[in-house]
Amino acid sequence: MSAEFTPIPLRWVGPLRLTGDVEAEQEVPLATYESPLWPSVGRGARISRLVEDGIRVTVVDERMTRSSLFVADSAAAAVAASRAITARFDELGAAVSERSRHAKLIDLDTEIVGNLLYVRFALTTGDASGHNMVTLAAQTLMERVLSWHPELSYGSISGNYCTDKKATAVNGILGRGRSVIAEITIPAELVEKQLRSSAQRIVDLNVQKNLVGSTVAGALRSANAHYANMLLAFYLATGQDAANIVEGSQGFTWAEVRGDGDLYFSCTLPHLIVGTVGNGKDLPAVDDALARIGCREEREPGANARRLAGLIAATVLCGELSLLAAQTNPGELMQSHLLLERRKDSSS
Amino acid sequence: MSAEFTPIPLRWVGPLRLTGDVEAEQEVPLATYESPLWPSVGRGARISRLVEDGIRVTVVDERMTRSSLFVADSAAAAVAASRAITARFDELGAAVSERSRHAKLIDLDTEIVGNLLYVRFALTTGDASGHNMVTLAAQTLMERVLSWHPELSYGSISGNYCTDKKATAVNGILGRGRSVIAEITIPAELVEKQLRSSAQRIVDLNVQKNLVGSTVAGALRSANAHYANMLLAFYLATGQDAANIVEGSQGFTWAEVRGDGDLYFSCTLPHLIVGTVGNGKDLPAVDDALARIGCREEREPGANARRLAGLIAATVLCGELSLLAAQTNPGELMQSHLLLERRKDSSS
Amino acid sequence: MSAEFTPIPLRWVGPLRLTGDVEAEQEVPLATYESPLWPSVGRGARISRLVEDGIRVTVVDERMTRSSLFVADSAAAAVAASRAITARFDELGAAVSERSRHAKLIDLDTEIVGNLLYVRFALTTGDASGHNMVTLAAQTLMERVLSWHPELSYGSISGNYCTDKKATAVNGILGRGRSVIAEITIPAELVEKQLRSSAQRIVDLNVQKNLVGSTVAGALRSANAHYANMLLAFYLATGQDAANIVEGSQGFTWAEVRGDGDLYFSCTLPHLIVGTVGNGKDLPAVDDALARIGCREEREPGANARRLAGLIAATVLCGELSLLAAQTNPGELMQSHLLLERRKDSSS
Amino acid sequence: MSAEFTPIPLRWVGPLRLTGDVEAEQEVPLATYESPLWPSVGRGARISRLVEDGIRVTVVDERMTRSSLFVADSAAAAVAASRAITARFDELGAAVSERSRHAKLIDLDTEIVGNLLYVRFALTTGDASGHNMVTLAAQTLMERVLSWHPELSYGSISGNYCTDKKATAVNGILGRGRSVIAEITIPAELVEKQLRSSAQRIVDLNVQKNLVGSTVAGALRSANAHYANMLLAFYLATGQDAANIVEGSQGFTWAEVRGDGDLYFSCTLPHLIVGTVGNGKDLPAVDDALARIGCREEREPGANARRLAGLIAATVLCGELSLLAAQTNPGELMQSHLLLERRKDSSS
Repeated sequence: MSAEFTPIPLRWVGPLRLTGDVEAEQEVPLATYESPLWPSVGRGARISRLVEDGIRVTVVDERMTRSSLFVADSAAAAVAASRAITARFDELGAAVSERSRHAKLIDLDTEIVGNLLYVRFALTTGDASGHNMVTLAAQTLMERVLSWHPELSYGSISGNYCTDKKATAVNGILGRGRSVIAEITIPAELVEKQLRSSAQRIVDLNVQKNLVGSTVAGALRSANAHYANMLLAFYLATGQDAANIVEGSQGFTWAEVRGDGDLYFSCTLPHLIVGTVGNGKDLPAVDDALARIGCREEREPGANARRLAGLIAATVLCGELSLLAAQTNPGELMQSHLLLERRKDSSS
Repeated sequence: MSAEFTPIPLRWVGPLRLTGDVEAEQEVPLATYESPLWPSVGRGARISRLVEDGIRVTVVDERMTRSSLFVADSAAAAVAASRAITARFDELGAAVSERSRHAKLIDLDTEIVGNLLYVRFALTTGDASGHNMVTLAAQTLMERVLSWHPELSYGSISGNYCTDKKATAVNGILGRGRSVIAEITIPAELVEKQLRSSAQRIVDLNVQKNLVGSTVAGALRSANAHYANMLLAFYLATGQDAANIVEGSQGFTWAEVRGDGDLYFSCTLPHLIVGTVGNGKDLPAVDDALARIGCREEREPGANARRLAGLIAATVLCGELSLLAAQTNPGELMQSHLLLERRKDSSS
Repeated sequence: MSAEFTPIPLRWVGPLRLTGDVEAEQEVPLATYESPLWPSVGRGARISRLVEDGIRVTVVDERMTRSSLFVADSAAAAVAASRAITARFDELGAAVSERSRHAKLIDLDTEIVGNLLYVRFALTTGDASGHNMVTLAAQTLMERVLSWHPELSYGSISGNYCTDKKATAVNGILGRGRSVIAEITIPAELVEKQLRSSAQRIVDLNVQKNLVGSTVAGALRSANAHYANMLLAFYLATGQDAANIVEGSQGFTWAEVRGDGDLYFSCTLPHLIVGTVGNGKDLPAVDDALARIGCREEREPGANARRLAGLIAATVLCGELSLLAAQTNPGELMQSHLLLERRKDSSS
Repeated sequence: MSAEFTPIPLRWVGPLRLTGDVEAEQEVPLATYESPLWPSVGRGARISRLVEDGIRVTVVDERMTRSSLFVADSAAAAVAASRAITARFDELGAAVSERSRHAKLIDLDTEIVGNLLYVRFALTTGDASGHNMVTLAAQTLMERVLSWHPELSYGSISGNYCTDKKATAVNGILGRGRSVIAEITIPAELVEKQLRSSAQRIVDLNVQKNLVGSTVAGALRSANAHYANMLLAFYLATGQDAANIVEGSQGFTWAEVRGDGDLYFSCTLPHLIVGTVGNGKDLPAVDDALARIGCREEREPGANARRLAGLIAATVLCGELSLLAAQTNPGELMQSHLLLERRKDSSS
């Protein structure tokens, strides 16, 4: 096996104007084969610069989780163990802290199915996304629990109640990763001029497509048009484990008509699994990109990662806004595609 | 905006032995920041070569879809239009064929919510994944439908009932992309020697983690450990739109104990959105990778893409098998990670 | 075991005015312990009589399903069998018709997970809900399939891909039971006078509660406030198997502001499992209720059941509209409850 | 509107033998039109009496919830309010206790989508199911919150994040109602003699039908055959609001082969919304039934309701076990139905 690289086309787009928990006027790197994404995000970025507050970003929460599976003989034993483990939360927290400077146990949830006991550990992991930190912590915690409870046996270090790289409901309800909301209020005239649409049309489309359409499609805790595109491109450019776009792309676009035709537009991203240290972050291209977006500063642990998450959420908003506006106009979507890329999969 | 590239670490892993709808002994390219993936898939590949039939691959179906939204005045009008459109399927098919050599309309489904009419068009798209082809077709079809039904108005070219890059139920139930199953039967002694596990332990873990664990996590039509990892790496290396791992990673691992401790192990991937022509496929690195895996041959339309889908499914099987086996052994998972990568997100 | 009865409080509410696929001015029976339901539905019924067209009802589809599970040795064998079975659809249809006058096979879908083959049979069942008819048909069909395919073995007569009395995505996407939409357009002044609300407030609440709220709750193909209440009461009063409210209550409320403050309001119920003949329908109280609502007439097979389904959908609309309107008014909901029932579960 | 009753056929089945959190040898009342349910549950009850420990019941948790919706101007304001409200949990708890002797606030969760703030209040409600108690409490709490936060406006007393009478993920993950697990271990010879099956066949069927089948059907946090049937019948006979079978029937059947062919069989019911006081519980037939099953005793608040929940879970286990065993035998299911009821919906 020889070392090589697959080069993914990269463009820097923006700058985006951010306020709130991240104050910045920042270009962002997007690595993707889908070149129409660049001008799409670029249009949103331009709008952000035309609005005084730009895109306001709020970081709601941060944590990383791993669920371990223990097998008991009976539900009665599983429930008893669950209560005992929960009662010794502080001891478990201390055990984690002994082995790691950065990982800190902050919560623990259990779920029982018959004699199967799933324990979901939640930790803060500083600036790391925390995959390895929580796995290491889970190993420590499993050993501890099994030493306390010989009536339990090892099921799995990871029991899919974590949940990593799968779309589920638990991540949003109990939390996983950085939870971020990006929002913007766009004056009516900018909506018309820059987006060639109206607040009402965008609001209606969001409800009919992202909410009703997703509902009938059988979506799960998700209502958006294409968060996955922006996440993929940003994740690749900054060394993130892009398999985490699977759960990261579950999120909610919400828009309202405000005042006399102004548009309130928001993207809620409850579980972005991202970090500025860890696997892949020391590759030169990644390191450069992280430095250029200001995520290599000396800050308190977690602050660089929160900045990263905020930039990602704002970028998602730019691309989502732009596509929805385009889809309010019959024909625009396709025309953009035709102009912006060489279509190889269509013969017409 | 200057053109650049983000280099993603790439390794060629294998070869994997495939039989069934794809006959091959083939190395596969995996581009990812998650370096432990390479030896993990490599272990599965080695096993495939030690089994006479290797990994048997079956391509079940192929199609690409786009759902368009029409707005009626009433449910009665929406239902009437739905029936009329369905009755004129042949005319719609002809309209598509007029504008494209490769796209062919093969199915049409409707879903109605009050006065909102979602029409889901299904097409075959040759060797392309078909995003643009179905969007172009949908535009043609919307124009046709709106000309027949002036009582309908344009809602959206895409109504999220497609469903692209989102985890939903509709893609598996009605079909989207290439549907592929990979399976292998591994003699007991290979399970023990190569996987340091047993068929029974792997079967139990699959049920307790992938089925029960996913169920309590609130997963949706999905039961696997980490399909997303293998899909991401293969997609990036071959120029696929990797945002499609979101729905691609919904799939089912199913294992059985056979005979005297042999392991039957399968991965069912109902909706892989992949192709060998189209966006990104002409980049030199991508073109080389596709050529090297035998997807640049002169074959009937769709055959190269089916080979690609089969190779992907077999690769998913290798990685899934390897991780599950590892998780049956307390401690192995973490040790592998510790050995194989420089952990930057843990301080211990 | 001695025969007894549990008496459920019953009221006749209405009449409701229906047009469209069911033309009627009809009182409806509601058996429930939740007495506030009666005036709630009654308010909706009154509004229906004040609007010329009343509640327009559209019956979109009707069918009943059962999925049987076959076990193959391999995915390859399961796929081959699936294709062979699908190709002999007409023979299967004939086998069903030989054994039943009313059951008619109209569709067949397959789903494969590894070596497991789920075959979902869809039948029309006349005026019956059809539970027994499809089970009997599935038995016939399984025998036939197993005789053709000795390489398959019996898995289960019912494989949960049917899906009966469970909330799933498949029933709405592939169809099961009667699919009905009820809709009404209410002039602005009636909205204000009868509902003490406005079209805009009801539309906003429907989006924020039924669509966004259900989405974050992790609902599945469902967006409504309380369809289950109306279904339960109607089902009990008319001898339906009320366990089918589980999937029956998955449905979509959709509202729009029309013209100058008029309210368009609709309830889409994709899978009502109801009938006018079969289990429980010959009990005197049930027989009386069915006769009184006009579902004991001499009509073509299915027509009585369609009338029943239409009445149910219209009743659901009445109760849903009334509750949503109430919830637009702070305090109204609780006051109604306090006045209308003896609260035993609160001590204040 | 004249007062009447719909009589639902009722049988007392059993007795069931219960141990664990409920110690009893108790007949249970089942009111249903589906008469085959009685012998089906009866078979399970007989087995429970043949096993020394009978059905062991564990009550895991109890609470009732209501989520209220507040509307802010921005996400930033919604997040700030969410944090402020959470910090004043004790004041909110005191406000609830002032107005109710029985209701006690025990938890509070928030969920934010853009500027929409959903606050989910969790309370214990003594022996009541607690629908009205939590609605009343929510009204009190909304008033309090709105007085603290004039920047918020009233959205809805209930925002569907509760979630009442709808199948969602949130109820199981955060808790709602009584959470109960019932389990039994049946010696191999009883499995063969009483159930005409084997532990292995029942275990396999549970995995293939309840887990895999439900997964492909797109089920949500649920894996069982027919919990809804038993819940409906028990709820009706004891005055419960049977619309709550919608979420109550989400639950998990889990079985294992133990020892030399013994069967471990369990039913996990995470959210039974049931009570022994409140609406409908004072009707003579209901009062009699509750007295007869020992739920009218002088006990600490909640104890009667926990007994009720335990009896329900055990009854669910009896019916689930019986049906699954039957479905392991080709033909048995249908024959039972043919013998036990007059089939009116089939003409053959």
